[in-house]
Amino acid sequence: MKNRLLLLPALLGLSMTILAQRPPAINSPEVHPDHSVTFRYFSKKAGKVTLNGEFLKAPVALTKDTTGVWSVTVSPVTPDIYPYSFRVDSVELADPNNTYIFANERFKRSIVDVPGDKPLVHALQNVPHGKISYRLYESATLGTSRQLLVYTPPGFDPNGKTKYPVLYLIHGGSDTEETWTKVGRANLIADNLIAQGKAKPMLIVMPYGNVRPAPMGDFTKDMVNDIVPFVEANYPVVQDSKHRAVAGFSVGGGQTLNIGLTNPDKFAYVCAYAPYTATDEFKKNFTNWSPNADALNKQLKLFTISVGTDDFLYEPVKQNIAMFNEKKVVVKPLVVPGGHTWMNCKLYLANTLPQLFR
Amino acid sequence: MKNRLLLLPALLGLSMTILAQRPPAINSPEVHPDHSVTFRYFSKKAGKVTLNGEFLKAPVALTKDTTGVWSVTVSPVTPDIYPYSFRVDSVELADPNNTYIFANERFKRSIVDVPGDKPLVHALQNVPHGKISYRLYESATLGTSRQLLVYTPPGFDPNGKTKYPVLYLIHGGSDTEETWTKVGRANLIADNLIAQGKAKPMLIVMPYGNVRPAPMGDFTKDMVNDIVPFVEANYPVVQDSKHRAVAGFSVGGGQTLNIGLTNPDKFAYVCAYAPYTATDEFKKNFTNWSPNADALNKQLKLFTISVGTDDFLYEPVKQNIAMFNEKKVVVKPLVVPGGHTWMNCKLYLANTLPQLFR
Repeated sequence: MKNRLLLLPALLGLSMTILAQRPPAINSPEVHPDHSVTFRYFSKKAGKVTLNGEFLKAPVALTKDTTGVWSVTVSPVTPDIYPYSFRVDSVELADPNNTYIFANERFKRSIVDVPGDKPLVHALQNVPHGKISYRLYESATLGTSRQLLVYTPPGFDPNGKTKYPVLYLIHGGSDTEETWTKVGRANLIADNLIAQGKAKPMLIVMPYGNVRPAPMGDFTKDMVNDIVPFVEANYPVVQDSKHRAVAGFSVGGGQTLNIGLTNPDKFAYVCAYAPYTATDEFKKNFTNWSPNADALNKQLKLFTISVGTDDFLYEPVKQNIAMFNEKKVVVKPLVVPGGHTWMNCKLYLANTLPQLFR
Repeated sequence: MKNRLLLLPALLGLSMTILAQRPPAINSPEVHPDHSVTFRYFSKKAGKVTLNGEFLKAPVALTKDTTGVWSVTVSPVTPDIYPYSFRVDSVELADPNNTYIFANERFKRSIVDVPGDKPLVHALQNVPHGKISYRLYESATLGTSRQLLVYTPPGFDPNGKTKYPVLYLIHGGSDTEETWTKVGRANLIADNLIAQGKAKPMLIVMPYGNVRPAPMGDFTKDMVNDIVPFVEANYPVVQDSKHRAVAGFSVGGGQTLNIGLTNPDKFAYVCAYAPYTATDEFKKNFTNWSPNADALNKQLKLFTISVGTDDFLYEPVKQNIAMFNEKKVVVKPLVVPGGHTWMNCKLYLANTLPQLFR
């Protein structure tokens, strides 16, 4: 995880033929003790290089030294994990010297981890670690093999007497099944909160949520008819609604509302993070929705909607919350600073986990 | 795994604010039934765009249409998984529209999967699938937490009576612990060969092999003192040399030779793929090496060195094979067409697996 070795080929003197094809290895990003960060990019030919990052209000320019190394040092930033990218003339790209990529289908960004002076909730700490398994399942709904990730907590015994609860955790619309671990650090957040006694040991299942042509309705079917049965056939889990939670971000937050609120007999915990709900499926399910609020409120142990005040979905999310209030469905809002970002996703998840399966 | 949805945000009509920041989603790479492939890149501002790929002898130019979409269709290529990248003016980058990235610390390339008319040995097929687990272990040797991947075969039961053999499989010098699965498809190769009865069910442990400042000697210690004990404490495996194999590519091939041949009491199967051996550690271990060849040949159930005739290491690898022959150490060479590539890595692994643990 740490101490990635960027200079290895140079240290080994690996074939000059190969090396000649590659730019020199440089250290980027370099995080300093005061939480400032230096970003570097090598190019003798570029005319202009800028840095864009979710810790910046606007892109900043890098300056070139005589050896072709462009660099900029940004002021101390609040410790967190941030996406960033370079723009080199007309081209936006991930940092060539950074191994850590934002798992996404629509853009290539790098991520930089600015550690806190005390370990943050998503930091790799010296606590027992769970593991992440990459599994293939057959989706009868979608007629294909799909991959999902399963976090199992420390001490997990697939054949032991302990039966676990399960959180089904869905990524955003152009993310992948890896985004919740690679960017959201869901596994480390769970490790840390479980070690502190703040979260119950649980499985976290992270499916691939992108489905065509009906991302909402068909994914609900995939979840209910394929994913949950696959998990329950292969893991020692409690098979009732009080031991199933569904959560998701953005498009995955919309999927969460559709999946959870149309199946309250299956999921007693429904946690939508900045949900995107401008979809036909949401309209179909909720425009003329007249739930038996009392019954639903009894079925749902937790229904929460989280959003940041700078999120571009802040207004529609507030309207959604108002709609649920109007229908007397008890929803617990979490409104915090921040935008439609994975920094906020980590915060939402860390807020959710202690409330699950109580 | 399949049917990645590139158009999802557009289909959902996701916020125009966000969309406006992004180039249009385009289909790249598009693999045609005749094994030709179309690559596309969007830019209204670029002056020149070229494609470099390991299926090409030299880069080819893309041409721009009136909408800013650059494209080129390459002639049918031999079915395989290939790395490729674009060069846009001075900038080399991965294909922004392709989710699949070559896991590497020194470059950002995309990979394209050209399927065979009949399924290739690395293809996702309708057979029982093993799983890949991402694990953190504490390396006392290196004083840090490191990540490794563990493939467990279909039907694996951590508490069952079956004890498994283990292949320790090491990546190349600037690769990561994910390269053998993401690019090498080690898990699917194993799934398929096990389903065909050609390989024995086994664990495949893929550590992170890059170590500083002594990539060879310190990694041997990490392997013997930390990785193997971690695996044997956590998985039902047979703890003797005849049930341990070590294999690796390039720098990992050099590590394989150092680890395996200096510990023949621990590893009875030693499989070096295009090993890079111009290292102090290799010199130290093998320059004045005078093994008891008879004893060593009895300990080693398989010692194989694989290389392609176009590999830039072909000559030194041939010299290594000659050196082992001269010392009467039985080595089984596999010399095939091809270069220092991950296409060849898959071939080497598929050749090795049926020979292990017999």
